[in-house]
Amino acid sequence: MEKYEVFRSLAIIIIAAKFFGLCARKLKAPQVAGEIVAGLLVGPSVLGLVGYSDFLGYMAEIGVMLLMFTAGLETRISDLRKTGLKALSIACAGVFIPLVCGTLLYMCFYGFAPFGDEEFYKALFVGLILTATSVSITVQTLKELGKLSEFVGTTIVSAAIIDDVIGIFVLTIVIGIKDPSQDIGNTFLMTGLFFLASVVFGYVFYRVFKVIDNRWPHTRRIPIIGLALCFVMSYCAQKYFGVADITGAYVAGVILSSLKDSNYISRKMDINSYMIFGPVFFASIGLQTDIKSVDMSILLFSICFVVVGMLSKILGCGGVSFLCGFRGKDTLKIGCGMMTRGEVALIVAQRALSVGALSGAYFTSVILLIITSSILTPIVLKILYAEKA
Amino acid sequence: MEKYEVFRSLAIIIIAAKFFGLCARKLKAPQVAGEIVAGLLVGPSVLGLVGYSDFLGYMAEIGVMLLMFTAGLETRISDLRKTGLKALSIACAGVFIPLVCGTLLYMCFYGFAPFGDEEFYKALFVGLILTATSVSITVQTLKELGKLSEFVGTTIVSAAIIDDVIGIFVLTIVIGIKDPSQDIGNTFLMTGLFFLASVVFGYVFYRVFKVIDNRWPHTRRIPIIGLALCFVMSYCAQKYFGVADITGAYVAGVILSSLKDSNYISRKMDINSYMIFGPVFFASIGLQTDIKSVDMSILLFSICFVVVGMLSKILGCGGVSFLCGFRGKDTLKIGCGMMTRGEVALIVAQRALSVGALSGAYFTSVILLIITSSILTPIVLKILYAEKA
Repeated sequence: MEKYEVFRSLAIIIIAAKFFGLCARKLKAPQVAGEIVAGLLVGPSVLGLVGYSDFLGYMAEIGVMLLMFTAGLETRISDLRKTGLKALSIACAGVFIPLVCGTLLYMCFYGFAPFGDEEFYKALFVGLILTATSVSITVQTLKELGKLSEFVGTTIVSAAIIDDVIGIFVLTIVIGIKDPSQDIGNTFLMTGLFFLASVVFGYVFYRVFKVIDNRWPHTRRIPIIGLALCFVMSYCAQKYFGVADITGAYVAGVILSSLKDSNYISRKMDINSYMIFGPVFFASIGLQTDIKSVDMSILLFSICFVVVGMLSKILGCGGVSFLCGFRGKDTLKIGCGMMTRGEVALIVAQRALSVGALSGAYFTSVILLIITSSILTPIVLKILYAEKA
Repeated sequence: MEKYEVFRSLAIIIIAAKFFGLCARKLKAPQVAGEIVAGLLVGPSVLGLVGYSDFLGYMAEIGVMLLMFTAGLETRISDLRKTGLKALSIACAGVFIPLVCGTLLYMCFYGFAPFGDEEFYKALFVGLILTATSVSITVQTLKELGKLSEFVGTTIVSAAIIDDVIGIFVLTIVIGIKDPSQDIGNTFLMTGLFFLASVVFGYVFYRVFKVIDNRWPHTRRIPIIGLALCFVMSYCAQKYFGVADITGAYVAGVILSSLKDSNYISRKMDINSYMIFGPVFFASIGLQTDIKSVDMSILLFSICFVVVGMLSKILGCGGVSFLCGFRGKDTLKIGCGMMTRGEVALIVAQRALSVGALSGAYFTSVILLIITSSILTPIVLKILYAEKA
């Protein structure tokens, strides 16, 4: 391939992603869904204008790291400390109940498999995809309703953040034990060591960054070195600890999240992300979605997947919130507030594809879940809040 | 190569480029020089931490397009119209005298070659590298001295801009006629057609962008579609007209340069550029510089190249400014103000490498010229202005 050929692919992806992203937003669907549809349309499934290439794969990979890094930057450790036991319990339920339900769903469809079996991991990954809450749409809806700072609102946001942290942890373990070259004890050991090393080095890096940040606030070097830290941690996680690179990128973000300039870093990452790496990642999901292999069985599975995905969060988080003392509509608000899925579900699905656990056909299920949950959440929340008033 | 391996290369490049870039700035040398040295150090020539890979090549290529696009964005057509015949004459001299001198220099060293010969093109590319003025250091110096808005200052800046336009045009022609599959008449025809098409489509795009810009000023879509236009024009230039892709990117920038939001676009491009693509491009120059193949002959050539590079601009631009009515020190100020070289010289050298006209060893000469001219220009200008006062 001539080097300039790449500009054609990039131009088509950027224009299509932006156009369909805007269309999605007009239809009140998440922009991300539009970008994926753009990838589907221009990719081999429909128009065949752009093919998936190694180069696009690398660009998408950088896009994933930027997304996880930014997600980490938005996780304030100080906020986590403040959240009480209630949010923690809701978050745990929000991870484990969907995980179990998703795993069981796959097994109901394709047969039960014992622990360690290839099919078992497929089932587990389906469960994993269901764990991560994407709280941004809920936050936006609650803001519009003016209810974000109420107790129910802050509980949802805190639970969603802890939910991410636990989800990442579970993902790390699952990817670790899936690797046939490692035994489970070793995986737990290495994962533990990674988090220990992250705490130690993270503290050192944090102090160094704080000095730099105080001395030269708002200078280019801060986001640049931050990005380098993100790459270093992604690489080291995978290479030396056998931990998923996205975990490394996320932890790098968490380390820098308490800096005064964390918003500044986040903004600069965001520009890189939305200009080129983000659209390439989301479109690449579309490019890799093999729409021709979607048959009735997968379609049926997808519908069940969407229903189970939403119900498991509503019942899990809502149920535990009831046990925590929330009553009536508040339990439903918490459950529905936690049911949206977003980027992270896609990233987990993509990781499952790259370790060979799931095929590209399952992207359809994930995309459906993201679109459905993102459209339903604001509607349901508005109804729940309106009824109360 | 595992995908995560790429993060290691990127992290090393970003950290080294930033560090040496800052060191260079402390030493009053251009930051770009520091970034190239970083590439040299981490690359196969010295430490061998990072190797040149296809992926880095693509990233560097995007970096080049962003640089040329930004250069185009900073070329205001309205400013060009205002510049008089004087600046135009100085610019022409600033392109053609270095072009001829550089070509002759190579022939003096390696023997005369007839038109059409492989060696002839090598000589021509050496001349071409010398054509593009990088006016940013001069502008900064004149600003510091408070002389930017004086007639000599504006003449230098205007001449440097026109110099870029003519330089790009000459480069386009030379790359065109170097292609053995095309005859010269055809090259001129296609180049003419490209510029004609650029004017027609450029006007259409400009009107469309103006509507978008007025309706949604300062929104993300403007730089995103701008970037897409840059990629589209790079691709179309190369694919359909046989014109260099960098010419396409530059013209895309020129098209959007009269928009109200051109600074906004330029700023967003800049963030993408300095965060990741820029360092990768400059470091990749260092990675590709084969320092081991630098022998006495090339070293001697490099020294002559630097001297000829600076003198040809001083004599060419200074001489023509004398013919235009400038007298005494003013001619020297104009000559010296035009002698700095920068990114574009590197881009031309890289293009020469990729079409197989020059070897990586000649990067040494270009790097030396950039460093020497960037350090000397401010010093000489300050002396010239101080003497007058």
